[in-house]
Amino acid sequence: MEKKIINLGIFGFGVVGQGLYEVLNRTKGINARIKKICIKDPNKTRPIDSSFFTTDKDEILNDPSIDVVVELINETDAAFDIVSTALRNGKAVVSASKRMIAENMEALYKLQVENKVPFLYEASSCASIPIIRNLEEYYDNDLLNAVEGICNGSTNYILTKIFEEHRSFETALQEAQDLGFAETNPTLDIEGYDSKFKIVILLLHAFGTFVKPEEVFNFGIHHLNDFDIQFARQRGCTVKLIGAVRRENGHVFAYVLPHLIKEHNLLFDVYNEYNGILLESAFTDKQFFVGKGAGGTATGSAVLSDISALLYNYRYEYKKIKQNNQPHFTNNVVLNVYLRYSSPAQVNLEQFESISEKYESPTFRYVVGKINLKDLQTAKWLTDKGVNVLVIE
Amino acid sequence: MEKKIINLGIFGFGVVGQGLYEVLNRTKGINARIKKICIKDPNKTRPIDSSFFTTDKDEILNDPSIDVVVELINETDAAFDIVSTALRNGKAVVSASKRMIAENMEALYKLQVENKVPFLYEASSCASIPIIRNLEEYYDNDLLNAVEGICNGSTNYILTKIFEEHRSFETALQEAQDLGFAETNPTLDIEGYDSKFKIVILLLHAFGTFVKPEEVFNFGIHHLNDFDIQFARQRGCTVKLIGAVRRENGHVFAYVLPHLIKEHNLLFDVYNEYNGILLESAFTDKQFFVGKGAGGTATGSAVLSDISALLYNYRYEYKKIKQNNQPHFTNNVVLNVYLRYSSPAQVNLEQFESISEKYESPTFRYVVGKINLKDLQTAKWLTDKGVNVLVIE
Repeated sequence: MEKKIINLGIFGFGVVGQGLYEVLNRTKGINARIKKICIKDPNKTRPIDSSFFTTDKDEILNDPSIDVVVELINETDAAFDIVSTALRNGKAVVSASKRMIAENMEALYKLQVENKVPFLYEASSCASIPIIRNLEEYYDNDLLNAVEGICNGSTNYILTKIFEEHRSFETALQEAQDLGFAETNPTLDIEGYDSKFKIVILLLHAFGTFVKPEEVFNFGIHHLNDFDIQFARQRGCTVKLIGAVRRENGHVFAYVLPHLIKEHNLLFDVYNEYNGILLESAFTDKQFFVGKGAGGTATGSAVLSDISALLYNYRYEYKKIKQNNQPHFTNNVVLNVYLRYSSPAQVNLEQFESISEKYESPTFRYVVGKINLKDLQTAKWLTDKGVNVLVIE
Repeated sequence: MEKKIINLGIFGFGVVGQGLYEVLNRTKGINARIKKICIKDPNKTRPIDSSFFTTDKDEILNDPSIDVVVELINETDAAFDIVSTALRNGKAVVSASKRMIAENMEALYKLQVENKVPFLYEASSCASIPIIRNLEEYYDNDLLNAVEGICNGSTNYILTKIFEEHRSFETALQEAQDLGFAETNPTLDIEGYDSKFKIVILLLHAFGTFVKPEEVFNFGIHHLNDFDIQFARQRGCTVKLIGAVRRENGHVFAYVLPHLIKEHNLLFDVYNEYNGILLESAFTDKQFFVGKGAGGTATGSAVLSDISALLYNYRYEYKKIKQNNQPHFTNNVVLNVYLRYSSPAQVNLEQFESISEKYESPTFRYVVGKINLKDLQTAKWLTDKGVNVLVIE
């Protein structure tokens, strides 16, 4: 065990940055201290001494006494620039920027290999759940079949309020925003992009396969209406936004889609801003991880765990990339879905391989049937706000 | 990353040993092979070639080409003897023997320090759930408050059958035994000893405090009757056997006791042989881990994960012991319990600090009230089969 004191240079002092500051302050026995925090707006009032702050990124990136760069900003391109410069300068990096990481996985992997420095990002996927670490360390030999679950706290909060407290979508969204779980522009959350970035990261650590976010289909909860909610309730189900990665016949597929979830499913009881991830493997069947998926201290605590791991020279080994038997990514897989619409012209039912249920009324219609994920991905009719789709397991 | 091939010497070829063999055989990319298996009975028919087997433990312990000793036998003293000899001989050791480990924690810790060799035992606590690893690595800085949950697969199987399928205790126990989840002598499971051994191990990794099993109170599900089951159902609850470790006011307490569990509690939906562990911490609130707690391949897979970790030079750092601010162990804590009995002479209600409910009928009586754990621990009246206690949260 190496005993050293780590000097931290932090980029960004928003919810996560302040959460990290608080967590670091209240944690005894960690040999890390903040040396500098780089922010955009020097005139904003800050809760800590102004001597900590700078607006010049080079004050961190070029300071040889700073060992670890912690990147917690919102702009994807700027974040990638900071992270890659820091890695090239031989600094270890911790980041929580799921979008930036998902979009640049392969480049970031190469930068780590070339510069022989660790890059940790546990906070980027499901905040407080140590899922990347467990996929890396503990599930390195087990024959994993699937990683799936709830990986976006704000949509789960909204769905909980709708199903448990009978709130409207709009009221629930407003509440999530007031509590800081949802961004002011909630598109990334409610349309499933945020979940997708996490799924792309988990896919790499679970199976060793690089996939670009644009290859993975995402559809969120933005089309959900009262009729769908009624449909779910009548079947004793709730709706959860699910990110899924699954290996089948030597291939791996992934998507983000709302699912009907039955009461005995472990995911049914994951409420509010909590996330829940189910792993399926050959030897252990199901394993399930639940924890807070949003909030400053939950995310800050994950960042701190990464910093602490660096003290012990931890790095992701990416063993599954090195084992060189990664499954190929595919979207060619058949899903069983509920499709709700109003008039036949809105959808293309011919794309269904089979239809097991059909319902018609003057206001709404639905079918339950099997459709290929490839066809969902390219279906223009799914952009119609009057059409919704839910996976039925 | 060090690439090497590990030679394994295995003690025991029962359910877990055979599970490990199967898991190892079906796992590509692990650089470990079985060199020798030490067994007691050379005449038993074995599923693999007899050249693997020996009855002489020194053939493993004194073989310099064997890097890792895997101890999977049932006898506590013999297991401790094997493990300590192996450590002294400079071999890394993997074990699944919770009782042996719990009873010898301090000696085993010292042996690791003195001989500078790793000793891993993830399979000893909650089989397939990587709880020790996560307490060691991921929750090293977070301010943990509690570790509690279902850590015995066979009692959970029995309770599931009783509550979900209205089986009698006896039928459910028989089924658990038939499926290999419960030992032929089920006392250790149903009286809570097995859970206690795990709790003692988790307590060390969560808080850095050494506690002997005899200091921790355990009471199982062996007194549960139809009246108790009825009582739980009327309150919309189920019963789960809970092992708990909780920090309060600079002290830590622990126990194993059956709990009434409400429907919205995450532990409610942990069924059959599955285990579920809830962590509570200052920054992340609740985190929850679920996985199979019994069965050959689930446990074998945990053993294999330890073996694989040794390939990467992993060892438990026992950081919380080294941080030197461990909480002291205490049993001085007040619990809210349901106490069922038949006649007032059977119990000593004066030991209750307060009583909030009282029920009397010609057959059964109960009180709900607050009692100190110390008094429960020394209560002779709790050995009366006609008396039962359940914690109400």
